[in-house]
Amino acid sequence: MTEPVRIGLLGRGTVGEAFLELVRERADAVGAATGRRPEIAGVLNRSEGDFDEILAASDVIVELIGGTEPAREYVLRALREGRHVASANKQLIAQHGDELFGAARESGVQLRFEASVAGVIPVIRVIQESLAATDLRKVFGIVNGTTNFILTEMAKTGASYADALGRAQELGYAEADPSDDVGGADAAAKMAILARLAFHTPVSLDDVAFEGIEHVQPDDLAYAKEFGLSLKLLGVAERHREAISVRVFPCFLYRGHPLAPVEGPFNAVMVEAPSITEITMSGPGAGGTETASAVLGDVVSIISGKAPVHAVRERLEVLRDVDSAFYLHLEVADRPGVLAQIATHLGDNEVSVKSVVQWGLGDDARLVMVMHECAESRFYAAVEEIGKLGFMRSPPRSIRVIEEEFV
Amino acid sequence: MTEPVRIGLLGRGTVGEAFLELVRERADAVGAATGRRPEIAGVLNRSEGDFDEILAASDVIVELIGGTEPAREYVLRALREGRHVASANKQLIAQHGDELFGAARESGVQLRFEASVAGVIPVIRVIQESLAATDLRKVFGIVNGTTNFILTEMAKTGASYADALGRAQELGYAEADPSDDVGGADAAAKMAILARLAFHTPVSLDDVAFEGIEHVQPDDLAYAKEFGLSLKLLGVAERHREAISVRVFPCFLYRGHPLAPVEGPFNAVMVEAPSITEITMSGPGAGGTETASAVLGDVVSIISGKAPVHAVRERLEVLRDVDSAFYLHLEVADRPGVLAQIATHLGDNEVSVKSVVQWGLGDDARLVMVMHECAESRFYAAVEEIGKLGFMRSPPRSIRVIEEEFV
Repeated sequence: MTEPVRIGLLGRGTVGEAFLELVRERADAVGAATGRRPEIAGVLNRSEGDFDEILAASDVIVELIGGTEPAREYVLRALREGRHVASANKQLIAQHGDELFGAARESGVQLRFEASVAGVIPVIRVIQESLAATDLRKVFGIVNGTTNFILTEMAKTGASYADALGRAQELGYAEADPSDDVGGADAAAKMAILARLAFHTPVSLDDVAFEGIEHVQPDDLAYAKEFGLSLKLLGVAERHREAISVRVFPCFLYRGHPLAPVEGPFNAVMVEAPSITEITMSGPGAGGTETASAVLGDVVSIISGKAPVHAVRERLEVLRDVDSAFYLHLEVADRPGVLAQIATHLGDNEVSVKSVVQWGLGDDARLVMVMHECAESRFYAAVEEIGKLGFMRSPPRSIRVIEEEFV
Repeated sequence: MTEPVRIGLLGRGTVGEAFLELVRERADAVGAATGRRPEIAGVLNRSEGDFDEILAASDVIVELIGGTEPAREYVLRALREGRHVASANKQLIAQHGDELFGAARESGVQLRFEASVAGVIPVIRVIQESLAATDLRKVFGIVNGTTNFILTEMAKTGASYADALGRAQELGYAEADPSDDVGGADAAAKMAILARLAFHTPVSLDDVAFEGIEHVQPDDLAYAKEFGLSLKLLGVAERHREAISVRVFPCFLYRGHPLAPVEGPFNAVMVEAPSITEITMSGPGAGGTETASAVLGDVVSIISGKAPVHAVRERLEVLRDVDSAFYLHLEVADRPGVLAQIATHLGDNEVSVKSVVQWGLGDDARLVMVMHECAESRFYAAVEEIGKLGFMRSPPRSIRVIEEEFV
């Protein structure tokens, strides 16, 4: 065995501690796999360590600070001074990817970030290495464990969004301030990374249209159950000829969809291309040891060989208005002509109705409609008009749907 | 861009043709990903090409001949003469792995074989690279698409094994002589490869205990449906302290098991370790373009950088007798004392019964029993005794079961 590989660790939270533990436990295995045994050269934390000293003493920098500053500054300096970097930081890669990839390429070093998306699921490696020459058309999945836990809890127990969020917080699946997770921003950052790698084009956070799950009601899940659908927060990055779209939104999935059985804090990602049909990967989306394990996998890869550094191959337009199918929930006064007026507004916007179910509620009625796929802009235009009609008892609610014929 | 990478292709069947097509289509993308454009230096087939000339003209040999000879001889010569090799040949790797890995190590070249197991699912790369330093405990899944198609067809339509096999042959999912697939030998070769890589120990084909699906009856699937179970041909490689077991067998899975929804010709593989919990990967198990796509992924990896060559880290004993739970189907004469005698033979062998359902059939009765986990040898000893009892109307039938508490 040759000399050890010296690791400088930045950040010592839950994942940092798990990483230190894992390096202790698996140092021999890393040595057996790569010929070089890892050792910790230094740890930078609020209360310990000096970045310059750690950088000087390290071959590889592992960045587990999170957030953009000072993580960006440290990682940039490490790359520029010829150190390989493994990072679990989705915001850093999503927001400063171009700068960081550029620095890595110039210095001829590796920048790996498997743990930044979908925890222990090796989606980055599969897209960047196994599928590097594949004509990917779509990368999509469940990339936020907090929201998947909350939606699973609501579906299983009938709990309200607030109660399910409380339960997630109790169990450590949601943070005290959950807004990045439940609002979709966390998933948006991950989808920006996946879209960039899958389509070899620059994707910034602003390119990702995202919605969260805060407005999901228990009765949305009750209908879903009745119709055999499940509700997931999906991230979808898709290629449309010379353009792409990157979006995050709650979505009903038909029972047999490969993502439908993914429950609790698990994540899952699917990739589609004509030459591979589809690959689905699932596993824990977070967890200290799981995330640390993905980071250690990056360290092993860094020691073992070269890695592809992301490079832009083309600059694709990012579309905002794509086609989707929708579920539409309306509470209306139960009087003649209501359905006709709603149908007229839909028809005028070229939105075609696939199915309607109506329930009587005393003087009121509830309509649950499912639309055929159409441009989202047309659907939202119709919904805006419908929302202004005098017989509406509450604002219209809509959620996207992926139905069976999708496959 | 630097000089092209010259590929010598051995074999030009369905996968070979798809590979040639894919190289034509994706050469620019490979160039963009790796800096080197692939070009075909020569093709060896029954009717064309000379191996020595092709070898001399190539940087990388792609072996798609299948079987062990002459594939073994060609691949060995290529490795020894310093050529990287990508192969889709499970029999070659399973039977001659030690020799081939040794040759690759000596010459300092890469031997990649992603397409040999589970088609387009990147399970080899994930185990060898992402999880190289992970303490894997179990690798298991559905690694034969033919049998999964047949079992899915039997479950959905109530067809007999023979009819479902005929349908698979019509659709090209089963060969004219399907014995390697339906008898479990194909899955056994794949599990030998996965076990070797996961546990870093030599595993030969003889180490794999395998059973096929030829004896599955429509009523086994009918019971499965009734109890919410699905029937799959599983390959299971497992670490037991200082030993391993590697097996292939039909198995009932509870409804929520991650492998239960894998239908038709799809494959799926799960890996388990304390530090990752579990990762599940699924996708098409075969298909010309899909397999060719996995091979092209290997070529991209070969051009891009170094690869780990499998090395034995320890020599682990291979256990034959492990614990399993079983479903047992008995047709007996319906008279007093029958159940008592059966229970006595089970009890004498320390096999504990979890549930029993009995149906009357005129003078006869059918018993369907599910056992708790016990050593397989004890269960089979009990079944052998039971099979000799005078009231048995037909030989006992048993199938392994993985029930919910498994998770």
